[in-house]
Amino acid sequence: MSETLEKLRAEIETINYAVLELLSRRAGLVTRIHDLKSAAGMPAFVPEREQRMLEELVRRNRGPFPDQTIRHLFKEIFQASVALQDAEAGRVLKTSRARQSGDLRIQIGDAVIGGAPVVVAGPCSVESEEQIESAAAFVASLGLRFLRGGAFKPRSSPYSFQGLGPLGLELLGRAARRHGLCAVTEVVDPRHVDLVCQHAHVLQVGARNMYNYELLREVGRTRTPVLLKRGLSATVDELLWSAEYVVLEGNEQVILCERGIRTYETQTRNTLDVSAVALLRQRTFLPVVVDVSHAAGRRDILAPLGRAALAAGAQGLMVEVHPCPAVARSDAEQQLDYAEFERFLEEVGLRRPAHGADQPWSAPEIEAPLRQASAG
Amino acid sequence: MSETLEKLRAEIETINYAVLELLSRRAGLVTRIHDLKSAAGMPAFVPEREQRMLEELVRRNRGPFPDQTIRHLFKEIFQASVALQDAEAGRVLKTSRARQSGDLRIQIGDAVIGGAPVVVAGPCSVESEEQIESAAAFVASLGLRFLRGGAFKPRSSPYSFQGLGPLGLELLGRAARRHGLCAVTEVVDPRHVDLVCQHAHVLQVGARNMYNYELLREVGRTRTPVLLKRGLSATVDELLWSAEYVVLEGNEQVILCERGIRTYETQTRNTLDVSAVALLRQRTFLPVVVDVSHAAGRRDILAPLGRAALAAGAQGLMVEVHPCPAVARSDAEQQLDYAEFERFLEEVGLRRPAHGADQPWSAPEIEAPLRQASAG
Amino acid sequence: MSETLEKLRAEIETINYAVLELLSRRAGLVTRIHDLKSAAGMPAFVPEREQRMLEELVRRNRGPFPDQTIRHLFKEIFQASVALQDAEAGRVLKTSRARQSGDLRIQIGDAVIGGAPVVVAGPCSVESEEQIESAAAFVASLGLRFLRGGAFKPRSSPYSFQGLGPLGLELLGRAARRHGLCAVTEVVDPRHVDLVCQHAHVLQVGARNMYNYELLREVGRTRTPVLLKRGLSATVDELLWSAEYVVLEGNEQVILCERGIRTYETQTRNTLDVSAVALLRQRTFLPVVVDVSHAAGRRDILAPLGRAALAAGAQGLMVEVHPCPAVARSDAEQQLDYAEFERFLEEVGLRRPAHGADQPWSAPEIEAPLRQASAG
Amino acid sequence: MSETLEKLRAEIETINYAVLELLSRRAGLVTRIHDLKSAAGMPAFVPEREQRMLEELVRRNRGPFPDQTIRHLFKEIFQASVALQDAEAGRVLKTSRARQSGDLRIQIGDAVIGGAPVVVAGPCSVESEEQIESAAAFVASLGLRFLRGGAFKPRSSPYSFQGLGPLGLELLGRAARRHGLCAVTEVVDPRHVDLVCQHAHVLQVGARNMYNYELLREVGRTRTPVLLKRGLSATVDELLWSAEYVVLEGNEQVILCERGIRTYETQTRNTLDVSAVALLRQRTFLPVVVDVSHAAGRRDILAPLGRAALAAGAQGLMVEVHPCPAVARSDAEQQLDYAEFERFLEEVGLRRPAHGADQPWSAPEIEAPLRQASAG
Repeated sequence: MSETLEKLRAEIETINYAVLELLSRRAGLVTRIHDLKSAAGMPAFVPEREQRMLEELVRRNRGPFPDQTIRHLFKEIFQASVALQDAEAGRVLKTSRARQSGDLRIQIGDAVIGGAPVVVAGPCSVESEEQIESAAAFVASLGLRFLRGGAFKPRSSPYSFQGLGPLGLELLGRAARRHGLCAVTEVVDPRHVDLVCQHAHVLQVGARNMYNYELLREVGRTRTPVLLKRGLSATVDELLWSAEYVVLEGNEQVILCERGIRTYETQTRNTLDVSAVALLRQRTFLPVVVDVSHAAGRRDILAPLGRAALAAGAQGLMVEVHPCPAVARSDAEQQLDYAEFERFLEEVGLRRPAHGADQPWSAPEIEAPLRQASAG
Repeated sequence: MSETLEKLRAEIETINYAVLELLSRRAGLVTRIHDLKSAAGMPAFVPEREQRMLEELVRRNRGPFPDQTIRHLFKEIFQASVALQDAEAGRVLKTSRARQSGDLRIQIGDAVIGGAPVVVAGPCSVESEEQIESAAAFVASLGLRFLRGGAFKPRSSPYSFQGLGPLGLELLGRAARRHGLCAVTEVVDPRHVDLVCQHAHVLQVGARNMYNYELLREVGRTRTPVLLKRGLSATVDELLWSAEYVVLEGNEQVILCERGIRTYETQTRNTLDVSAVALLRQRTFLPVVVDVSHAAGRRDILAPLGRAALAAGAQGLMVEVHPCPAVARSDAEQQLDYAEFERFLEEVGLRRPAHGADQPWSAPEIEAPLRQASAG
Repeated sequence: MSETLEKLRAEIETINYAVLELLSRRAGLVTRIHDLKSAAGMPAFVPEREQRMLEELVRRNRGPFPDQTIRHLFKEIFQASVALQDAEAGRVLKTSRARQSGDLRIQIGDAVIGGAPVVVAGPCSVESEEQIESAAAFVASLGLRFLRGGAFKPRSSPYSFQGLGPLGLELLGRAARRHGLCAVTEVVDPRHVDLVCQHAHVLQVGARNMYNYELLREVGRTRTPVLLKRGLSATVDELLWSAEYVVLEGNEQVILCERGIRTYETQTRNTLDVSAVALLRQRTFLPVVVDVSHAAGRRDILAPLGRAALAAGAQGLMVEVHPCPAVARSDAEQQLDYAEFERFLEEVGLRRPAHGADQPWSAPEIEAPLRQASAG
Repeated sequence: MSETLEKLRAEIETINYAVLELLSRRAGLVTRIHDLKSAAGMPAFVPEREQRMLEELVRRNRGPFPDQTIRHLFKEIFQASVALQDAEAGRVLKTSRARQSGDLRIQIGDAVIGGAPVVVAGPCSVESEEQIESAAAFVASLGLRFLRGGAFKPRSSPYSFQGLGPLGLELLGRAARRHGLCAVTEVVDPRHVDLVCQHAHVLQVGARNMYNYELLREVGRTRTPVLLKRGLSATVDELLWSAEYVVLEGNEQVILCERGIRTYETQTRNTLDVSAVALLRQRTFLPVVVDVSHAAGRRDILAPLGRAALAAGAQGLMVEVHPCPAVARSDAEQQLDYAEFERFLEEVGLRRPAHGADQPWSAPEIEAPLRQASAG
């Protein structure tokens, strides 16, 4: 019997090589068609043709494979051919590591995101001049370079505090400049992009707007770096595609931000997904940071989450710190007070030596946003 | 012993009544303060004061309750007082059944949503004049009144077909008018609202934009009915709050749409949540419809899902139907062909008698959008 | 150019047919090997061989497909061959509709599950003789045939009420017999199966034990019908595989029970998944019922959920009813009182005409469990 | 006006203190009743009485609070009293940090879990003597002390490889002893506990059995350490309660294992939940380890996940390593080969210096299981 077995196996191998040969020739033909068509400006993919080919193949199928297997196998073959064209036509995402193996470093003034870990800190919302000035002074005193603070706050309920709007932007921008910090703030409307660019060094697109492609396109038309947060239940693929919307408009300076995903667990506001951090670091050269405050939704585990995020490869942490969390107008239960924040920095190993604060940093100028004409 | 027990229990009951009396008096005082303050234009709620009161209470606590219990119980008491003011100040959602027990009926031309079940049918995307004309004729021939079709398609990947844009809108509007149908189509950008209003009878806000509050406000400034889809992993509360954003701008004609939520199950594209339908029907007077196509993401279980949606209280179904699903440029695997769609209608019990199609329906005019000036 | 295009396309089609021909021949060879091997008692699938073939194919790949595409396509081809053998060897699940198109009807005494909708009602836990006697009398008075009641209660916390154990079993069995009802109760330990069989007409395997394969095997060795609940976050496939564990031991009388899945939504205890009902009804001939009480975890939406379940194809509903829910020792917030339960029956359309209760039903005898020797 | 405001506020504060006084007295009375009752062996909590009190309070309510607010506030007050009794009666979980602030260190032979990070490594399943012998030699050569390997494999499909059973146990135990390692293996049936204890140093209860309370009780009756995995979608609370089932039977040596939870993301087999690690480390003194292989379900991100787990506070990692993953009979896609595993150890910072392997370790003797009589 083993002789028969050997003979049958040899036949199978011969068939394998013949199929390989045919598939390679087929791919060559598809590439030639593709080139002819793109030269003539014709659409590359015609699903009707594919459909007809599948039907004809099924019609000719004499078994032993059932028709659905034949349909499945040839769909895979057709799809591989399309993917081949896409890859050649540049459909590998523009932010893929396959295109650039080194990490992208985004320079903002003399600060950099994408290298050694940075900390983006500040209150959830800008609430008053005193509050944001206090926070900015505190953040700067620790040698940090990025000040967050929301002026336009997307809130689930229309009855919740919605932020100070343009006034908040101004207060934030002023406090940041005064202390030589980069201002990071959210933009929620394509019509506000110009305005926000005048006050912020980094445009944040929040979790609720990760699928807001018109907003993504609009921030993509600026030259201001964009911090793009992962949606509440977005996949890693969807986050990368959303970044692609920005990059395709010409703005390559995108920072990805994992901030926890929505799961059944109620102990935390969201579930921090460190696997996403690891996967993103592997698949793209864009910087990846983690917002531990929104992931946890509580103060007491921020330090271990921060350490885990860095250990998984995050190049920065985002943390909410407020002069008096108890009276904060949003996210009261997750913001740290100053003492807690200093302890946090120490526990995650990002407390700079004291003399760090002495260096005479220059406040980064807001670059005039180089925008293409937009519909706004 | 049972005597002692009885005595202790009687003491407890006396305390209960004393606490009740104090809480009621306290609520009366809070209401008076609230009235004084709102007359003087002062902010109602001062968290610092609450914080100080809690601290003082904890300071005075001599046990046996631990401090955190005292803090918790008084927070509940404080919150009940705030809620009382909110309720009196009208913070019960504007769309709550507590305000209006009867169902809202939205009249569009001579069609109504919010009464007997309606069917909103049509292709996922408008792809060509022939395609949408064919779909419109088919939909109308069955006596249905609502034609769906996407012109602006929000797609996860920027490389997927993004819809025909303004041309798609025009083709859809024209096909709908020609066949006396109401056009339902998605708007994805606050700057497009005017344009879409010129072609559509119902503005759809898709799942990806349920948290896009600027868009919600903008459609809230029109007088065109809005079909608001539940976000991919939105809670029922969040959906109701998003509707409130629309209503607060003056547009009360909001139709809520359950379309499945994101779960771990991969057999279906999303998990249809009929409990949400039941809860929404109980909590709001707004019409509730169900998009079975996006919930299932496959053709073969649309009929049982449609029946379940109606049984749970849905006042309409949304279904994708395409002249030739195999060549559809989006959602190919979930769109029904004409024969399948007719079978679907029969299986969900919404196939109208043939003579229904004979009635001379008038194409509903698009009402000139009565919009307040918007930032766009 | 169009001539060239036509020529290239014709070449592609020729290759398609050649590949089809080779794949069919290959499948024939694999089948012959498989037959030879199974005749000789040799293992069918040798992953090392597959691995070696893949490596050789990649070694021979000259492009244009990248190596990973070649690996992927051939894995699909190899897998299709394995699937072909499996299908022929009977690996289509024993409970698949592909094997039996008609619904399985499980006869218990003169009651049937798998035909017209049944209602399984009773308290969450058996708490006392009075309680279960009252519930049994009530359930029987409505013409229903199935009495549920837990004796062994799996509870998340070891400090929660764990059920009356063997005493609860006896009380339940006696009350059921007295009123001519079939007793449905949970078994949680393979060592209890014999005991439970002596008192119950249907063995329930709860959601927490759906992956407890030793328990599944043990109930599979009895001849008592098994009601198998879907796990808290089990997929439809996993539920069907768990049923297969029971059936493979010889007990084909399995009733599948959807009871909601765990999601992020907190308005309901679980999220009722009617798509699963539709899919199960399509894929298996086993009866499918729905436990609306555990899905909802609240009383006020049981009727719409019940209707939706039936509309999706469920062949029965499971509902918790208790003489006095406020004092129930478990699930107090979701059990119905008698008046609520009667209203529920009416609202789901399963209220029998009053005279139904007059028919002299015989209490179904517990069949002596025909068990194979077990390790217990 | 500000005078009036001050007066009203002062009245509110007086009421606050009066309520505080009453609540404290009430708690004292409840405690006395509780003591009387427990001395007399009476049940502490009588829900009917609570129900009657609530009804009477609502009857007496004259506003302005709506009845449901009164019901809610008093339920909170009643519950606080019950909690107080529970806390005093020892219902703080036995494994709570509130009881013991230091970490539990579980000593097995001369190895310890609960101190410096350990690595539990080995194949998913024991497949043959050669395989497990090779793995044991390799694991020992790296200076590691724990060898994992499944003999009873719970698999979703009954047609998947189910492990070698008792033979697998013996092979594992022998290989471990030969190389001075501690054997960690799964037990899936309460009737197997004795048998597994004879071969294993640590009994693993898998994710699928976390809710299998009979199994938990049975392993709780042994004196063998238990590695308890978190269920597929279990909450942190549920995991702690499951551990309590073990501890309440007398076995305090429980190791908790986070292994990822089921979410919508499909890039990873499960979603590693580092927040759970942080929370568990805060709430319990039990050791916490992380199974990175099952969390990821893929090889390429194991190192960042391992680092993140340790950074979040995990006291050990569990990893699958196989002499030839490509031919593994289970989990082929996630097991590391030897070279990959050595790299992994280095990347997570747990590669011991080479001389570590020279220390003459003694094979830990399996302690004769000191079991109480069990139902088995």
